[in-house]
This record gives sequence, structure tokens and C-alpha cells, in this order.
Amino acid sequence: MELLKEKIRRQGKVGAGNVLKVDSFLNHQMDIKLFNEFGKEFKRRFADVEVNKILTIEASGIGIACIVAQSFDVPVLFAKKSKTKNIAGEVYTSRVQSYTHGRIFDIIVAKEFLGPGDKVLIIDDFLANGAALEGLISLVKDSGAEFVGAGIIIEKGFQGGGDRLREAGIRLESLAIVDSMDETTGEIVFRDEK
Amino acid sequence: MELLKEKIRRQGKVGAGNVLKVDSFLNHQMDIKLFNEFGKEFKRRFADVEVNKILTIEASGIGIACIVAQSFDVPVLFAKKSKTKNIAGEVYTSRVQSYTHGRIFDIIVAKEFLGPGDKVLIIDDFLANGAALEGLISLVKDSGAEFVGAGIIIEKGFQGGGDRLREAGIRLESLAIVDSMDETTGEIVFRDEK
Repeated sequence: MELLKEKIRRQGKVGAGNVLKVDSFLNHQMDIKLFNEFGKEFKRRFADVEVNKILTIEASGIGIACIVAQSFDVPVLFAKKSKTKNIAGEVYTSRVQSYTHGRIFDIIVAKEFLGPGDKVLIIDDFLANGAALEGLISLVKDSGAEFVGAGIIIEKGFQGGGDRLREAGIRLESLAIVDSMDETTGEIVFRDEK
Repeated sequence: MELLKEKIRRQGKVGAGNVLKVDSFLNHQMDIKLFNEFGKEFKRRFADVEVNKILTIEASGIGIACIVAQSFDVPVLFAKKSKTKNIAGEVYTSRVQSYTHGRIFDIIVAKEFLGPGDKVLIIDDFLANGAALEGLISLVKDSGAEFVGAGIIIEKGFQGGGDRLREAGIRLESLAIVDSMDETTGEIVFRDEK
């Protein structure tokens, strides 16, 4: 998606430890108009499948998922990272190793909101090693719902998670795939659009 | 807001420890069409003030804030609850005691995204003792930005935070104020609309 690549080129900052800082528009301050363009683009790329629920994971996936959901006219469910007082009853759970936070955590969704009949599109902001996405797909499959695909805003292609999942048959659409980035020069190289 | 009260009456569940469970539409599964109605209502209630940024706090405030932002045509900034690799540089910080999680945490926003010239509307899903809202207002004031008001979806009136803040001169609009709720009968009593 050229609009997104341009935004990343102009506002993204390459930091130490494979960090691509896009917090001026994606995951701290959020450009809602841009998110709406993500929605239109995902709707185009997933035009051939039926979607009746979007699943994402807290925190930075939530805003994107809610705006994207308007293009599909469906509700959003977000997986939580820890059990709080507000979730009672039974949950589906999956273990994820976070690249960003450098720790392992459980992700959970309440069983009452995911199950047979749900056709689930997963939306998230970043894909690196693929652990969070695998955890979300696992929740969907455990619930008996149908996983129809995953839409990612920025895939860090050089970390390999996306290609590994594609090879495993996962339908995955990333709006920008970063194949390399250089911390010293700040250069970001995108994979060619198909 | 009658539509919201009706939704709470039909789908809300009163749990132990003053918990009002609304996770079928508000803070786990999210009803995006309803969120759009929140946006229109806040736009009506804050029609007399200029807003150029919405501030919220992760996680469950984010989706609401993003949809509401469309009614104001402004970007959203969300305060984070812990310092991650993705935020470098200087931040504004404030300490908050969470009612839901029963712990104390720091909330932070990057200084580059909040400052003089910003006219900030704070949006959050719940208001109970008011600690999170006070923390957010404190961040806004520290930054030199202007706090123009706060829009809350559900205020737990019986916990007193909202009334205390109103008495302190804070402009606060809550779409539903719960004045009492009964764990055994499930009854929820709303404050009369003004």
C-alpha cells in the first residue's frame, strides 16, 4: 500500500534492536483517516471471503481493528493479555512470547464471544516473528470458529514470521512489508507489492 | 443516553465487587455502530468547544476513542501503562491506582505528541473513583496543552469520582451514570438525564 509506505518513509524511525518507530501515526498517536484507508484496502484484499467478526489483541491493534471493522460492518473482539476482574467465566487461552515487551504472556478471549459460525479476520498492527498471530489463530481454532485470514499493517519481513506462516498455508495480507532497515542510515527497504 | 442505558439494561451483568460487566458490547467485544452513536452524542455535548486531539488510555478506551474521533475529525493519542521498547525519548508521566486491576501503575505519553496548542478531549470507557481520569488530566496540564473536557461512557456514580471531579470544576460528560446496582437482583438504577 503506497500511501502507508510513504507515511513510513516520512515519519518512521529505525531504532536499535529492530525497532521501527511509527508512533506518530500508528501505535501511540493514531491517524484515524489513514486507518480508514487500511479498512478499504483490507476490504479489497479480502473481497472474496465472508467475515462476520474481527479479532485483534490489546493494545495497539484495537484502534486499527475498530476503524477497519467499519469497512466490513462487523463487531470487533480483542484478546486480553491478562485476566482481570472484568472477565468472569470460561475463556480460551493461548501463550505468546512478545517481541516488543520481551516476555511471555497469556492471551485470552471469553468463550461466549467466539465460536462456531464466526468467520474471523484477524487484524494487528505489527507482525515480526509471528508469535502473537499464531496465538490468535490458535484461539480461533480452539473456539470452533473459522479463521478466514489475517491483515497486518506492517510486517517485518526480515524477521521471517510472515513467510513462515504463508508457507504453512495461512492467508496473510500485510499492507507494508519491510525487508530490511538500517539503524545508522535510517534506510527502509520495502518488499515489492504483488 | 437512552440507547446506551437500554443496552446496559439488556446486556450488562452486575458482578461481585462493584463490577458492571459490559464486555458483550463495550470493553471486550465491541459494537462499532454503537460507538459511532457515542461519537455523535459527544459531538453534540461538546459542540461549544474546540477539540483538536482526543486522549485516551489503553486498552479498552482505545477503540471507543478512535470511533468517537471521527465525529470530531481529530487524531487520537493513547496513554500507555508501561514503558516499552517502542517509546524512546522523553515522556510525560502520571501515577494511577487502577480499580479494575487493583494495582498502581504509571501512565505515559510521549512529549512530542502533546503540548501547547493541543485542545484535548479525554475519552474513556469507565469512570469509578476518577483516578485514571485525574492522571490523564494531569498529563494534559503538564504538557501545556488545554484540557477542554472528558467524555465517559459509563460512570459509576456511587463510587463518587465523577461528582468529586465536577465539584472541582472539571467538565465531564457521562453517557450513562449508574447510581446504584444490586448484585443479587441484577437491578441497575441510572441517574436521570439532565
